[in-house]
Amino acid sequence: SKYAYVRNFELPDPLLPGTFMLLRLDGHSFHRFSDKHQFSRPNDVRALQLMDHAAKAVMEEYPDIVLAFGESDEFSFLLRKSTTLYNRRQSKIVSTLTSLFTSCYVFHWPKYFPDTPLQYPPSFDGRIVLYPTEKHVRDYFAWRQADTHINNLYNTTFWALVQQGGQTTTEAHAALRGSFSKEKHEILFSRFGINYNGIDARYRKGSVLFREEIYEKGRNPSVGRELSILEKPQPKTEEKTAPSVRDEPQGETLPAEGATRDQKAKKVKEKRKQLLPSRIAIQHCDIIKDEFWDARPDILAE
Amino acid sequence: SKYAYVRNFELPDPLLPGTFMLLRLDGHSFHRFSDKHQFSRPNDVRALQLMDHAAKAVMEEYPDIVLAFGESDEFSFLLRKSTTLYNRRQSKIVSTLTSLFTSCYVFHWPKYFPDTPLQYPPSFDGRIVLYPTEKHVRDYFAWRQADTHINNLYNTTFWALVQQGGQTTTEAHAALRGSFSKEKHEILFSRFGINYNGIDARYRKGSVLFREEIYEKGRNPSVGRELSILEKPQPKTEEKTAPSVRDEPQGETLPAEGATRDQKAKKVKEKRKQLLPSRIAIQHCDIIKDEFWDARPDILAE
Amino acid sequence: SKYAYVRNFELPDPLLPGTFMLLRLDGHSFHRFSDKHQFSRPNDVRALQLMDHAAKAVMEEYPDIVLAFGESDEFSFLLRKSTTLYNRRQSKIVSTLTSLFTSCYVFHWPKYFPDTPLQYPPSFDGRIVLYPTEKHVRDYFAWRQADTHINNLYNTTFWALVQQGGQTTTEAHAALRGSFSKEKHEILFSRFGINYNGIDARYRKGSVLFREEIYEKGRNPSVGRELSILEKPQPKTEEKTAPSVRDEPQGETLPAEGATRDQKAKKVKEKRKQLLPSRIAIQHCDIIKDEFWDARPDILAE
Amino acid sequence: SKYAYVRNFELPDPLLPGTFMLLRLDGHSFHRFSDKHQFSRPNDVRALQLMDHAAKAVMEEYPDIVLAFGESDEFSFLLRKSTTLYNRRQSKIVSTLTSLFTSCYVFHWPKYFPDTPLQYPPSFDGRIVLYPTEKHVRDYFAWRQADTHINNLYNTTFWALVQQGGQTTTEAHAALRGSFSKEKHEILFSRFGINYNGIDARYRKGSVLFREEIYEKGRNPSVGRELSILEKPQPKTEEKTAPSVRDEPQGETLPAEGATRDQKAKKVKEKRKQLLPSRIAIQHCDIIKDEFWDARPDILAE
Ligand SMILES: Nc1nc2c(ncn2[C@H]2C[C@H](O)[C@@H](COP(=O)(O)OP(=O)(O)OP(=O)(O)O)O2)c(=O)[nH]1
Ligand SMILES: Nc1nc2c(ncn2[C@H]2C[C@H](O)[C@@H](COP(=O)(O)OP(=O)(O)OP(=O)(O)O)O2)c(=O)[nH]1
Ligand SMILES: Nc1nc2c(ncn2[C@H]2C[C@H](O)[C@@H](COP(=O)(O)OP(=O)(O)OP(=O)(O)O)O2)c(=O)[nH]1
Ligand SMILES: Nc1nc2c(ncn2[C@H]2C[C@H](O)[C@@H](COP(=O)(O)OP(=O)(O)OP(=O)(O)O)O2)c(=O)[nH]1
Ligand SMILES: O=P(O)(O)OP(=O)(O)OP(=O)(O)O
Ligand SMILES: O=P(O)(O)OP(=O)(O)OP(=O)(O)O
Ligand SMILES: O=P(O)(O)OP(=O)(O)OP(=O)(O)O
Ligand SMILES: O=P(O)(O)OP(=O)(O)OP(=O)(O)O
Ligand SMILES: [Mg+2]
Ligand SMILES: [Mg+2]
Ligand SMILES: [Mg+2]
Ligand SMILES: [Mg+2]
Ligand SMILES: [Mg+2]
Ligand SMILES: [Mg+2]
Ligand SMILES: [Mg+2]
Ligand SMILES: [Mg+2]
Ligand SMILES: [Mg+2]
Ligand SMILES: [Mg+2]
Ligand SMILES: [Mg+2]
Ligand SMILES: [Mg+2]
Repeated sequence: SKYAYVRNFELPDPLLPGTFMLLRLDGHSFHRFSDKHQFSRPNDVRALQLMDHAAKAVMEEYPDIVLAFGESDEFSFLLRKSTTLYNRRQSKIVSTLTSLFTSCYVFHWPKYFPDTPLQYPPSFDGRIVLYPTEKHVRDYFAWRQADTHINNLYNTTFWALVQQGGQTTTEAHAALRGSFSKEKHEILFSRFGINYNGIDARYRKGSVLFREEIYEKGRNPSVGRELSILEKPQPKTEEKTAPSVRDEPQGETLPAEGATRDQKAKKVKEKRKQLLPSRIAIQHCDIIKDEFWDARPDILAE
Repeated sequence: SKYAYVRNFELPDPLLPGTFMLLRLDGHSFHRFSDKHQFSRPNDVRALQLMDHAAKAVMEEYPDIVLAFGESDEFSFLLRKSTTLYNRRQSKIVSTLTSLFTSCYVFHWPKYFPDTPLQYPPSFDGRIVLYPTEKHVRDYFAWRQADTHINNLYNTTFWALVQQGGQTTTEAHAALRGSFSKEKHEILFSRFGINYNGIDARYRKGSVLFREEIYEKGRNPSVGRELSILEKPQPKTEEKTAPSVRDEPQGETLPAEGATRDQKAKKVKEKRKQLLPSRIAIQHCDIIKDEFWDARPDILAE
Repeated sequence: SKYAYVRNFELPDPLLPGTFMLLRLDGHSFHRFSDKHQFSRPNDVRALQLMDHAAKAVMEEYPDIVLAFGESDEFSFLLRKSTTLYNRRQSKIVSTLTSLFTSCYVFHWPKYFPDTPLQYPPSFDGRIVLYPTEKHVRDYFAWRQADTHINNLYNTTFWALVQQGGQTTTEAHAALRGSFSKEKHEILFSRFGINYNGIDARYRKGSVLFREEIYEKGRNPSVGRELSILEKPQPKTEEKTAPSVRDEPQGETLPAEGATRDQKAKKVKEKRKQLLPSRIAIQHCDIIKDEFWDARPDILAE
Repeated sequence: SKYAYVRNFELPDPLLPGTFMLLRLDGHSFHRFSDKHQFSRPNDVRALQLMDHAAKAVMEEYPDIVLAFGESDEFSFLLRKSTTLYNRRQSKIVSTLTSLFTSCYVFHWPKYFPDTPLQYPPSFDGRIVLYPTEKHVRDYFAWRQADTHINNLYNTTFWALVQQGGQTTTEAHAALRGSFSKEKHEILFSRFGINYNGIDARYRKGSVLFREEIYEKGRNPSVGRELSILEKPQPKTEEKTAPSVRDEPQGETLPAEGATRDQKAKKVKEKRKQLLPSRIAIQHCDIIKDEFWDARPDILAE
């Protein structure tokens, strides 16, 4: 039509190739949302597991996400450096992934809050930051996990003072102003008998989601990476037959979701070929030190 | 922490001031989604009303949205030219609004599809396009509504041929290939006794959402625009007392939603002051011709 | 070659269509440059005329520039709203035009400073700002011309105190600190017998460059805008036969330059068709009030 | 003034930190410019040396440029990864550096073309491309130098056929269409007795400019990198006392220029501290293989 010229005002927004995309989502006004839904303080395990579930679903839908990290009302997703998802179009990626995460959060809410109906629709903001090198990516995740630690140590001590120590929130704030990490550990231990390092790793470390290859009985391991795309088991099937792996330290694996979806033929090229069956693991481990990364060189690979 | 430098990689993305922002959302793979949830063809009134409901909720949350238009799996939102929402930051706006729309869609699903459980979480993409002048904005909406007309005329005829005419989809496609508008009208009328212009305006025109001022009995009208922000009735109250206005041609007004939310003090400035009580109307009227716009000069005002 | 992939890192940078581009150049460290070349204070007519000459040459090369304004070490160029120069690519436009201006400045230096050899190569920065409407453009030029006025009134008074009043620069600064416009006029008039409004308009108003159509004897004026592109006199010829028009108030017309250049066939489309012979006028007139603009509606037209 | 709001339309344009900036300049319509100034074919040593001179001057002014490569009418400049030049503002950097290069080109023209007056002011376009890693930078320069080789081999053979072989340009084009590198070598050697590898390295390899530390007699080398900024010899002095180093293979060093300039105090921080006296070398060496880079690890360092 004669109006179609308005289409030309849509400008290209490709993100620089050869860089890691880091998408960070954060709950919009979750101070209020957590209040209205009576999240337990300082940490609500249901809320955190729901976040993990939503993040896992996003990873299942977007194979180019190789790592995710969540804490509080936020989640960070790392896309592989070479991703060509939506031709690296910024708005398309940031909007679609934020949308899917939000959708999963609302969709799965009743599983985690069976007795707390959702009062109103929550929302999340999203942004993409580009990082040129592996070191930047490592430092990004270290930044988030260090933040988790600092916030959780503070919040844990604060709420101990309030809930167990009977202080008002004003008093607790005053008591902690300017205090060092060591002093908070000391308060927790001497006043409340809490060994901070004994607290659930989920709260201290946040959630780390990544892909793990699945060893499958009966499959000839020599096939390995050569597994042809035709023979390749569909995600759906794979996920079903995947052994439940709940015995890793500080981790668990939620049941696969979203994996039952068909894959649109036209989008197939946009998705990384998963030559080996894999499954998404959720752990609450350290990602600041080298160990995690050294054991999983694929995460920062092309 | 020593990792906080990674924050500096987040670049500013303000959108040019003095221009109209047009946010368009579109359902991700709704061909599949509509199939899986057995949307009726060519139009599913439940699906369309759900879209309207989600759009209305977004407008209630974001007063700077002055107009919205929906059809099929998409919705367009016009933000006033002078909006300073999130300091006009592109990613923040596009992600948050797309997220809220998605959330509302999932949240309200059961109201519109009481017998069809949601099979999987739907998602939407979002993008913002800037338009410098009123003419561009008018042409943008004309573009979308002309598209609605063309698609709906085609789809209506196509499905008449299939559902009532007993043709296969291949035959129907072939029958319509290269046909003119007039011929489709003719087919509908002569073969199926359908007067196209008698079809529900919702399908032919899409949905138009805008704010209407409410005349309130007992309120001194002379107060008018001078209504101080302190005296101002909270949206929540307003919405409750607002008279139900369901008698406009081709329109309806859904019950207010989201209006019960507190407004974060720090965000207050970001929101346009609503000095007069208003309510969001939904109509299925023409927005290509001048009449609609001439009657509502506020939409394209500052 | 196998290295050509690096080309893909070059990202598109188109500027929003339908907006006015305003390119502003400014001399890099001209405080130092004007010192080293002993520019007279507060205004050096040679330096200002050289700036005008360079700006005129840029306008001759780029027909989509419809207006330019210069003062001190800066020049602003307005490109017509509908320009498709270099497909509106930002870096291409900003770099090429800044480069050409710089080149002309150095090239023509000896004409204006025959006795002052250039000590070192001067440079300019450049930037493009987009303006959505005519009002913004008007206000932009008003901003620059108001700036010219304020700076020149200050500088004129300051240097009168120093050069004629025998004050040190420190004393002159102190004398003018916080003074109003009226007081400066008063100082100039009562102490130095200078009527500020009698000072060369060039210094008070800056330089305004725009295209003027040329009335040509012997050409049927009825042909007017319909003049076919084939019959159209080449710029080169036109400029030669153009009558010298030196009688406008506060203006002059420099001889055409650059007009002898061939036009690359491939670039022809990028250039606005000059259907009527025109020539660039330089005036030192008011561009804050309506008169200038009302008389030249073409400047802000498509 | 009330117009100053227009300033807010100027948007921030910082370039991603932690990446290498590559600025490439290219002569605007140099096909025509080289014709008009009768550049010798296929290579004009005067034109190429003038380009080198301009590039060297730019490097002297901008210490964060660590490497430059020139061929034909283009020059590429690498800025160190950590540069904060102009706060990494894209337009500011691309315009200022392109402007300075252009200015130097025009300024120094008479030194290289003493008998050929400049006919009109030449101009250059400029663009910045970001590269995330050292490998990308290496590949970028390999791309340009491979291009130099391919073009020069073609042009050398082409003009031999025309100038020495008496062919028309049409015949020469036809003769070379689809020919392999080896065949061109063969034509040159067997028909014209030209050993391609014996041709001036400048033409085959382009020009490579980089900083070299200067060993100075009498200076205690143990001071080395610790040399305080206060003791530091001014560039001007350094350049003067710098030993002429004209004996490196395929290289030369032009006399320093621009080094006599004062440094504005406010810009001092923008410039990399040159703790050790250095000087810019110009060579025509290979930059595709490792040797060049291995010997100069500083180029790709922070
Ligand atoms: N009680 C409780 N609150 C939580 C939990 N996880 C997150 N929250 C709340 C506490 C914080 O107020 C909020 C997250 O902080 P943010 O800095 O993201 O602020 P908020 O979302 O309110 O505002 P924003 O829209 O992100 O600027 O979410 C939880 O497990 N338990
Ligand atoms: N049956 C039915 N289908 C609908 C209705 N509204 C939308 N749809 C479907 C039909 C179209 O296949 C689809 C919208 O077309 P799109 O061009 O947006 O394609 P789709 O969403 O499949 O892909 P996309 O991810 O947007 O590229 O949604 C409806 O009321 N009834
Ligand atoms: N004496 C004299 N100086 C002039 C004339 N025109 C411009 N200038 C000088 C005075 C100012 O110091 C300078 C222009 O001020 P700017 O704000 O552009 O500063 P400058 O170019 O030094 O630094 P920049 O690189 O633009 O940040 O140029 C003139 O006609 N006569
Ligand atoms: N005869 C001669 N010509 C040269 C020499 N160096 C460069 N040129 C000319 C030959 C080419 O036509 C031109 C460079 O090619 P470009 O691809 O940059 O094209 P040109 O500058 O004409 O157009 P552009 O504005 O860059 O798109 O410069 C030289 O040393 N001798
Ligand atoms: O923690 P962030 O990055 O979300 O920082 P913020 O203070 O919430 O700011 P914004 O979300 O507006 O960028
Ligand atoms: O109709 P649009 O604008 O969504 O066009 P499209 O063909 O779906 O393309 P995309 O959504 O990838 O911009
Ligand atoms: O007057 P401007 O816009 O040049 O302002 P400035 O203070 O010189 O700043 P910059 O040139 O660095 O934008
Ligand atoms: O060789 P380039 O990159 O300059 O390529 P081009 O064909 O000249 O295109 P442009 O200069 O317009 O980017
Ligand atoms: Mg935030
Ligand atoms: Mg939040
Ligand atoms: Mg948060
Ligand atoms: Mg689409
Ligand atoms: Mg869709
Ligand atoms: Mg659609
Ligand atoms: Mg400046
Ligand atoms: Mg200046
Ligand atoms: Mg200036
Ligand atoms: Mg080019
Ligand atoms: Mg060129
Ligand atoms: Mg070239």
